Amino acid sequence: MAGTYTLYSMQSSGNCYKPRLLMHLLGIDFRLVDVDTFSGETRRAEYMALNPNGRVPLLVLPDGRRLSESNAMLLYLGEQTRYVPNDRYERALCHQWLFFEQYEHEPTIAVARSWLKIYPSRIGKATPEQIAAWQKGGNHALGVMEKRLAGNDWLVGANYTVADIALYAYTHVAGEGGFDLGPYPGIGAWLARVASQPGHVALDWRP
Amino acid sequence: MAGTYTLYSMQSSGNCYKPRLLMHLLGIDFRLVDVDTFSGETRRAEYMALNPNGRVPLLVLPDGRRLSESNAMLLYLGEQTRYVPNDRYERALCHQWLFFEQYEHEPTIAVARSWLKIYPSRIGKATPEQIAAWQKGGNHALGVMEKRLAGNDWLVGANYTVADIALYAYTHVAGEGGFDLGPYPGIGAWLARVASQPGHVALDWRP
Repeated sequence: MAGTYTLYSMQSSGNCYKPRLLMHLLGIDFRLVDVDTFSGETRRAEYMALNPNGRVPLLVLPDGRRLSESNAMLLYLGEQTRYVPNDRYERALCHQWLFFEQYEHEPTIAVARSWLKIYPSRIGKATPEQIAAWQKGGNHALGVMEKRLAGNDWLVGANYTVADIALYAYTHVAGEGGFDLGPYPGIGAWLARVASQPGHVALDWRP
Repeated sequence: MAGTYTLYSMQSSGNCYKPRLLMHLLGIDFRLVDVDTFSGETRRAEYMALNPNGRVPLLVLPDGRRLSESNAMLLYLGEQTRYVPNDRYERALCHQWLFFEQYEHEPTIAVARSWLKIYPSRIGKATPEQIAAWQKGGNHALGVMEKRLAGNDWLVGANYTVADIALYAYTHVAGEGGFDLGPYPGIGAWLARVASQPGHVALDWRP
């Protein structure tokens, strides 16, 4: 498979869905390698040799060089395409939302989903205090998104960008983390807008 | 003060130190507005109107437009300078380290420091379980950095970049979060290398 990208990925992970979706939108061929994070495979020596951080996704470029961090992949793959703004300030806002996603959104909404719905070893084990903390942090993040999306179609400027892809990944399955999106009509309309883009594929899509 | 940057900042925050240090290195004039996060000032209506996420730092550009997220500021201010790589893959690795910093490093090392040393209302209130979790997560992050820095002067390529600035911010005060850097000689040498760069200023520097 020389000459194509390889993505080490867990199918149910929103972080892994981000580069899958963008590569599909861009028509980039890639090979998917499923990694079983449930069994600790990402912290074993063979995988840590590929990614010392022991996380998925991991992208291997056609020349064999490696890149981790899902949002770094979005910026790399999206560079010079319609999905990363050309304007310097809009590109900065795009970066702003990507860091927001990893700091405010993913650690609450994705982590709640992983404990309540995804990881068999965690289901039923979250404490009421953990759930309350995820609810507080996740609803704060959703509130910040709603402020923008109540009056705008997209997170940055007038177009669908990698910022939307990054935040769509876990927002569209926030219900699986116990979040009620009812109070966020701007987010609701935006989720439908993303899903109706030409070439959109769902979380369970495989190349 | 039209025509200059304004940084809303808490002096002891590593996240706020990042843009201060880079603007000093680049010779960019800016005005500092101290924000008292201890008293909840960042979550009051006046501040939330500036930054809906209620966090510092916040950068106001000379034309009045606003940018949040410290690492987005580093990329914005550093663009087309020696501190952001020109090479596409090196720039992607730079992004990779910036996301790693916000996801793996800051939530453990900076948060431990904030509870153990910085926030008067938190000092003495961390539970042994919290401290153990910060130690585990923070030492994982330091281990990933050490793998790179044991054999390389800088995190990306052959030069000092915004990736080094972002990770220096809280690594050089990791001791205040209870972390022992003794087992990480590569990190130790790199900290000294950063601090010896021409134009370097310390965390407590003000314009």
